[in-house]
Amino acid sequence: MRPYDRARAVFPTGRDAPNDYLERCLATIAELEPQVGAFVHLNEPGAREAASRSAARWSVFDPLSLIDGMPVGIKDIVETIDMPTEMGSPLYAGWQSGRDAATVAALREAGAVILGKTVTTEFAATHPAGTRNPWDPSRTPGGSSSGSAAAVAAGMLPAALGTQVVGSIIRPASYCGCYGFKPSLGAINRGGSHDGLSQSCHGALSASLEDAWNLCWAIAARVGGDPGYPGLAGPEVMPAAKTPRSLVLLETPGWKIASDEAKQTFASALARIREADVVVIDRQSNTLVADIEVALEAALLLSRRINAFESRWPLNTYREKNRNGLSRAMLERLAEAEAMTLDDYRADVSRRAQIRELFAQLGGLTDGAITLSATGPAPVGLHSTGDPIFAVPGSLLGVPAISLPVLRAENLPLGLQVLGFEQQDAALFSLAAWLRELFEDSLPRGVK
Amino acid sequence: MRPYDRARAVFPTGRDAPNDYLERCLATIAELEPQVGAFVHLNEPGAREAASRSAARWSVFDPLSLIDGMPVGIKDIVETIDMPTEMGSPLYAGWQSGRDAATVAALREAGAVILGKTVTTEFAATHPAGTRNPWDPSRTPGGSSSGSAAAVAAGMLPAALGTQVVGSIIRPASYCGCYGFKPSLGAINRGGSHDGLSQSCHGALSASLEDAWNLCWAIAARVGGDPGYPGLAGPEVMPAAKTPRSLVLLETPGWKIASDEAKQTFASALARIREADVVVIDRQSNTLVADIEVALEAALLLSRRINAFESRWPLNTYREKNRNGLSRAMLERLAEAEAMTLDDYRADVSRRAQIRELFAQLGGLTDGAITLSATGPAPVGLHSTGDPIFAVPGSLLGVPAISLPVLRAENLPLGLQVLGFEQQDAALFSLAAWLRELFEDSLPRGVK
Repeated sequence: MRPYDRARAVFPTGRDAPNDYLERCLATIAELEPQVGAFVHLNEPGAREAASRSAARWSVFDPLSLIDGMPVGIKDIVETIDMPTEMGSPLYAGWQSGRDAATVAALREAGAVILGKTVTTEFAATHPAGTRNPWDPSRTPGGSSSGSAAAVAAGMLPAALGTQVVGSIIRPASYCGCYGFKPSLGAINRGGSHDGLSQSCHGALSASLEDAWNLCWAIAARVGGDPGYPGLAGPEVMPAAKTPRSLVLLETPGWKIASDEAKQTFASALARIREADVVVIDRQSNTLVADIEVALEAALLLSRRINAFESRWPLNTYREKNRNGLSRAMLERLAEAEAMTLDDYRADVSRRAQIRELFAQLGGLTDGAITLSATGPAPVGLHSTGDPIFAVPGSLLGVPAISLPVLRAENLPLGLQVLGFEQQDAALFSLAAWLRELFEDSLPRGVK
Repeated sequence: MRPYDRARAVFPTGRDAPNDYLERCLATIAELEPQVGAFVHLNEPGAREAASRSAARWSVFDPLSLIDGMPVGIKDIVETIDMPTEMGSPLYAGWQSGRDAATVAALREAGAVILGKTVTTEFAATHPAGTRNPWDPSRTPGGSSSGSAAAVAAGMLPAALGTQVVGSIIRPASYCGCYGFKPSLGAINRGGSHDGLSQSCHGALSASLEDAWNLCWAIAARVGGDPGYPGLAGPEVMPAAKTPRSLVLLETPGWKIASDEAKQTFASALARIREADVVVIDRQSNTLVADIEVALEAALLLSRRINAFESRWPLNTYREKNRNGLSRAMLERLAEAEAMTLDDYRADVSRRAQIRELFAQLGGLTDGAITLSATGPAPVGLHSTGDPIFAVPGSLLGVPAISLPVLRAENLPLGLQVLGFEQQDAALFSLAAWLRELFEDSLPRGVK
């Protein structure tokens, strides 16, 4: 792991410049990329040009945004006009969409330096694509935002775009030891990205909490959220740390299969939170929390069924085109979809809406919920991206979630996850910033 | 105008077969297409093959659906694996997406015969593309589903896919004298179509009410609605005609600029409805209706602003790519978007939600609302697709709307529009079927 500076903090002081910063990123990539495999494509000339333009703006103190000059990686299901978008699928090998996705267009408008496309699992689902965990190359970085998390954790980039429909931001953030921010449903415009499922959401993997906020805010301010949604709401500058009134402890269905060490380290974290005079409410002390824990038992199955039905297209047209172009996991998902009726789907969506309403009631009670980000550290092996179980509740609920890299198990990173309430992303950052202060001594080197 | 049969009614009797039916469509196209210009592309060999396969199924009484064998036109913003998708824009000339949109994949699964791509205005907005009205080639067919409406009205096809975000199904249906069905928001899966705005919706232009229902039902049953939406709900066979308890007369902001003849013919239609013992409730007799009329005064402006902001992407990346590839109207829309903030947009979306809630209250009072589909018959000239004003309320409200080709002005078609309530599309068809019976003597030749 390599330490690195945060773009946000450095350029305005004149001690650094975007082109120098970019060169350090490129040097790290040259050194570590052969081992990590975080990128599908790099556009070094384009990035150098963008960094120089940004440097010129900073030199006259006239940046376009707080992320002007920040090198960013783009998950390879998101379209870029200057690089192919291959979606981790042989069906899209070399595919050029000829345009930027909404997020990428907004990032360029904000002066960000689009450096490369990061590895995704096949169509952002489960089939992995070979990226290795920077902490231990025998382990998975998690998925589906595998390359984004690995690149940030390896110090190749300060931040990268990710997407999550089940566990694709929170899990890799946990495994790689960086921040992961999955915003409220619809908070970031997904136009030109190939994650159209109803639970799916764009977000950020980053080495600092500030850059996660700045990246997402810069996008939403320019192209909004998904059409019809209010878009990420809050101030341009990340909200300051704020001590919560209380926190809800959610075990979630993941608790039963979390490793003993993960549970112990989480228990120590809870003790530290209680020592800071924050009340922790749990299923034993509150019946609403108990009801939510029970409702969440269906979260993984519901998510899978809803995602399967919504994937019937485009998997049907892809199978028609070239059956061998889909992994076995994708063909199985399509078969699951074809066994469902529209009525089945409606019942699942309606059940999901009920669980969301139940969770929303917590908003009157507390400032957020806390749980693990994963069952333990990244598992050994590259054939699977690990168990997403702890990330599922946030995805199903459509609420904002942040994974903080402040726990460890087996001497590897493990995330502490906080969940907020719909459209209350800014309040969740205040909570996360408070937790970061509380656990500052536990942050990995290079992460702020 | 040429009379034609309905696919739905004929194949099961053995009196007709899909390949014979297709050949008659092709003969009509050969005769009239040079004058009308409804198509961008035709795939005759593919259609013949699909029709033959359908004929084989019908010959053993084993169709895949009620629309097995029905030739269908696809609006050219919807992707097709066998034809380009050009979106009425030089930026997409010859573009091949390499896959079918959700609707097209579903139609093929249902045995429909995908015959061709129909002309759309530029990106389904306002810039016209030359299609002529089959009733009078000096007049516009309306837009943006110009080719779909003109092809159906000319007897080239029994039905075609359209999309509407402002007036793009109801207006061309009115001008061309065919049925137009704009379903509830989200009722038809838009995956692989380039109409991603929050008010936009897929629907049908058709020569019979049954085929509009059958087409949309066949799609939703196979690929659902937009992700997260319940999808078109109702029985496989179109609901039977049902006399409404009452109807609400909505003048809407269009009334002030409707032609005298349009208003007179609408008044005669209302008289006929009252003669059938159906109570007509209006702004004079009911305060809720009066409130809705007032709220709808903002409909066009709100729609335009919301659509503009949501079009910021992809218009920004298209302008970056090739400014000359966009019409002046599109560049103006982008400039309007860039003058708006995310807060402006949020306020507009929130105002829209209030108006929707107000309209939903009507559901306790009546079975539907009735108004004109357009200010008059299709205007002369191909430089504009006419005024969408009467179609805006249904678009803004997100409720289902049907235009019935039962009125006339200047001896040309004019639509009678009925609006239903969200997710109550089936009930709206019962109402439309009742109106069709009431006005059966007014249907154009070849329309059922």
